[in-house]
Amino acid sequence: MSARVTAKVYVGTSLDGFIARPDGDIGWLVCFADAEAVAAYKEFSAGVDVIVIGRGTFEKVLEFDEWPYDKPVYLMSSTLKAAPIGYEDKVTVICLKPADLLSHLDSAGFKSAYIDGGKLIQSFLAEDLIDELTVAKVPVLIGKGIPLFGSLDIDIEFAHKETRVSSNGIVRSYYKRSAGRA
Amino acid sequence: MSARVTAKVYVGTSLDGFIARPDGDIGWLVCFADAEAVAAYKEFSAGVDVIVIGRGTFEKVLEFDEWPYDKPVYLMSSTLKAAPIGYEDKVTVICLKPADLLSHLDSAGFKSAYIDGGKLIQSFLAEDLIDELTVAKVPVLIGKGIPLFGSLDIDIEFAHKETRVSSNGIVRSYYKRSAGRA
Repeated sequence: MSARVTAKVYVGTSLDGFIARPDGDIGWLVCFADAEAVAAYKEFSAGVDVIVIGRGTFEKVLEFDEWPYDKPVYLMSSTLKAAPIGYEDKVTVICLKPADLLSHLDSAGFKSAYIDGGKLIQSFLAEDLIDELTVAKVPVLIGKGIPLFGSLDIDIEFAHKETRVSSNGIVRSYYKRSAGRA
Repeated sequence: MSARVTAKVYVGTSLDGFIARPDGDIGWLVCFADAEAVAAYKEFSAGVDVIVIGRGTFEKVLEFDEWPYDKPVYLMSSTLKAAPIGYEDKVTVICLKPADLLSHLDSAGFKSAYIDGGKLIQSFLAEDLIDELTVAKVPVLIGKGIPLFGSLDIDIEFAHKETRVSSNGIVRSYYKRSAGRA
């Protein structure tokens, strides 16, 4: 594999690995978003120049009080053909497979992509296309919900880079895809 | 709830939260058991005075070269009526619900129980009976397997106590059940 745009994941999960309750609720997670968490996210965010989200994340983001992204956003969707009215200047709708999307971002001159959203992350991991993975784990078991990780055909090894613990108990671990994949 | 024997979990998982592959294989986990990991386990082990395992863990342990436990072991089983031949002095077979087992251990004078094995841990967590939880996460996604955590009817909040990172990338986090439960 030639050098290409770096694909990064930054995500919060419960201690049992869920990113949301079955109905999509993330209140249990958001309540841990203190100043330290916001600073850590901003630090991550400063290191990406493009954001890729799926339809589910887009729907979720529409519920927020304000648009949370300050970078170009690609919306991966096989059903939407164009950005919804009012979002034409915020998102570029695209329908490509993960590897093709990364090639597309590469051609467009991007260096570092934030892959956001459960299904999208799983689809990239299934093809071993995630280069950097940050998981911020909050100290609560929610018992059921939407899992971060999905089924894989092969093991994927990461190298642990750093773990930081916040005062509210978040354990934030930074991983990079291990050597062996060029 | 009155003071009782402390129920502790100490377990290794993949980055995606599995304790074993679908067929029970733990080779991917065991290869991370370096001197640091052994020392951490010994430190934990020194703090318990009784071990509780389920039938699945017992079967697994029988495959080991030597009996790994140096404390009294209770084997929770509804099918076994007595210890298998050759293990009469190693395990006490018992069939009780989690809360009743803890009361029994309390009456027997034990102070700190190591609850080991996937199904057993899930059955204790389902009744919110785990006081201390240590998860040692290795930096590999295995994609499918036997999950550490199971379904819960309520959220269970823990307080993060400490996280230690080993040189081989294991992130070992220590949690205690939050205040609010007496």
